[in-house]
Amino acid sequence: MRTFSERLWQAVDAKKTPAMVGLDPRPDHFPEPFRSAAAAGEAEAARATADFHRELLDVLAPKVAVIKPQAAFFEVLGAAGFAALADAVEACRERELLVVMDAKRGDIGSTSTAYADAFLNPDTPFPAADALTVNPYLGEDACQPFLEVADRVGAGLFFLVRTSNPGAGLFQDLGQPSLSEHVAAAVHRWGESRRDAHGWSSVGAVVGATRPAELADYRARMPHTPWLLPGFGFQGGTAEGLEAAFDAHGHGAVVNSSRGILWAHERQDLQHLGDWQARTDCAVDEMIAALRPVQDAARAAT
Amino acid sequence: MRTFSERLWQAVDAKKTPAMVGLDPRPDHFPEPFRSAAAAGEAEAARATADFHRELLDVLAPKVAVIKPQAAFFEVLGAAGFAALADAVEACRERELLVVMDAKRGDIGSTSTAYADAFLNPDTPFPAADALTVNPYLGEDACQPFLEVADRVGAGLFFLVRTSNPGAGLFQDLGQPSLSEHVAAAVHRWGESRRDAHGWSSVGAVVGATRPAELADYRARMPHTPWLLPGFGFQGGTAEGLEAAFDAHGHGAVVNSSRGILWAHERQDLQHLGDWQARTDCAVDEMIAALRPVQDAARAAT
Repeated sequence: MRTFSERLWQAVDAKKTPAMVGLDPRPDHFPEPFRSAAAAGEAEAARATADFHRELLDVLAPKVAVIKPQAAFFEVLGAAGFAALADAVEACRERELLVVMDAKRGDIGSTSTAYADAFLNPDTPFPAADALTVNPYLGEDACQPFLEVADRVGAGLFFLVRTSNPGAGLFQDLGQPSLSEHVAAAVHRWGESRRDAHGWSSVGAVVGATRPAELADYRARMPHTPWLLPGFGFQGGTAEGLEAAFDAHGHGAVVNSSRGILWAHERQDLQHLGDWQARTDCAVDEMIAALRPVQDAARAAT
Repeated sequence: MRTFSERLWQAVDAKKTPAMVGLDPRPDHFPEPFRSAAAAGEAEAARATADFHRELLDVLAPKVAVIKPQAAFFEVLGAAGFAALADAVEACRERELLVVMDAKRGDIGSTSTAYADAFLNPDTPFPAADALTVNPYLGEDACQPFLEVADRVGAGLFFLVRTSNPGAGLFQDLGQPSLSEHVAAAVHRWGESRRDAHGWSSVGAVVGATRPAELADYRARMPHTPWLLPGFGFQGGTAEGLEAAFDAHGHGAVVNSSRGILWAHERQDLQHLGDWQARTDCAVDEMIAALRPVQDAARAAT
């Protein structure tokens, strides 16, 4: 069984980009006919969500390697929405796309095991994702069950180290070293026994990409940790300075955009393109182009 | 519209106990016929879960005021499990039981809004709980959407301040004041503009009940905050020292037991009682009796 880190970089190499697209379904922003279909009722909204994602994934699959469904936007659609989340994972697997389930779960003991089994274990009813985001607030014994399940099934984890929201520092910047730096040290430690033949671990980190200098510092603290860099595009992040996340092979991080891709079909400057698929495809191309100099810079620097 | 705090203490007064029962469905521990029914397949497990909870809630409803479904154990049953979670919430509402959804959600911006809407807003498909547990790691702007949705629908929140697991201190005890004390200060601050006529806020806290002296200290830091005290019974917590959580009216906290009630039907010393309902009822009576001196001590102390 290949490790998550091996599958991740192989997928990134195959598509020649670390771009990741987030699925944050908001039916009001679906292209037609999905938007109208979703407006007909609760069951219809969940059904339109599943239908839209399958067509969207057909656009994305030739170009990006990794998809990040955001559980919240499915759960707000109720139990049928949770089924649409399962369907999105299945649709990704059918298209050989890696899935990072962005659910930011975290609890204690057997409850953490239940969350990890729910989203990562192929022997439970929900289709298995390749990796899961985890909130570390509850401590090591609370994170351990996620690590154990991930080990057993060959999955990855992305622990929240530093998030990208403006107020992230209220708790995460406390202390010297800061809380985020303590979490980074723990994530590094958890990952050291879980490294692949190339040195990369399957224990990853979410690192908010708002200050480039911070990235280099976190990279020194977590040299073998795959990163999920959120906030590209809509949240104000740019590709500038991201090269600290990558090594000479262009490995080290996946960079997420959600609304920048999902809402691209609404962009005025793309209306000349015939359909929503063409506009989405154009936004994906833009993102990939914006990230190319990052990997090139990382290659040149090492 | 009454506030969550008003509804909470009224419900506690009506049942004369702060006891709360957690729903952590593990089909292997269901009484018959639910255990056998659950073993037949995935859909059957979810159906047996819903059926068991409705009969269990018939036992609990005359005696306890508040139910805490643990989302993880439903999610591990897949999309049908998520539907069983919705059914449990509906079954509680039909029996006029308050529901604290223990999902420990936490994310940023509009994603936090989606989680809060999912579980608290009666205008979304999932039936509304009375309160939700929230992980504060992502900071104030990430917690604000939960507060805004809770305000709009008259719901409560329980932010994780100090959890009850042995390793909770790895991050929560960092610094002086500690991370947990910083979070306590923030939770207190968020609650001050949300107090009812008796002074209680609808912004609550999860406070691990492992060291009695800690409780008095946290109470001084959060004098108007309803608490969810986890870990009574199976996790090693006892009623000793809990009085610091309560005021002279017996208000201030709800005390949770999950497995201590759910697995009571397996206890050797209760096998003389005819059926699982009678054994469960006995365990509830024991819990209520163990908590009575706590409220009495709180009344005497003030």
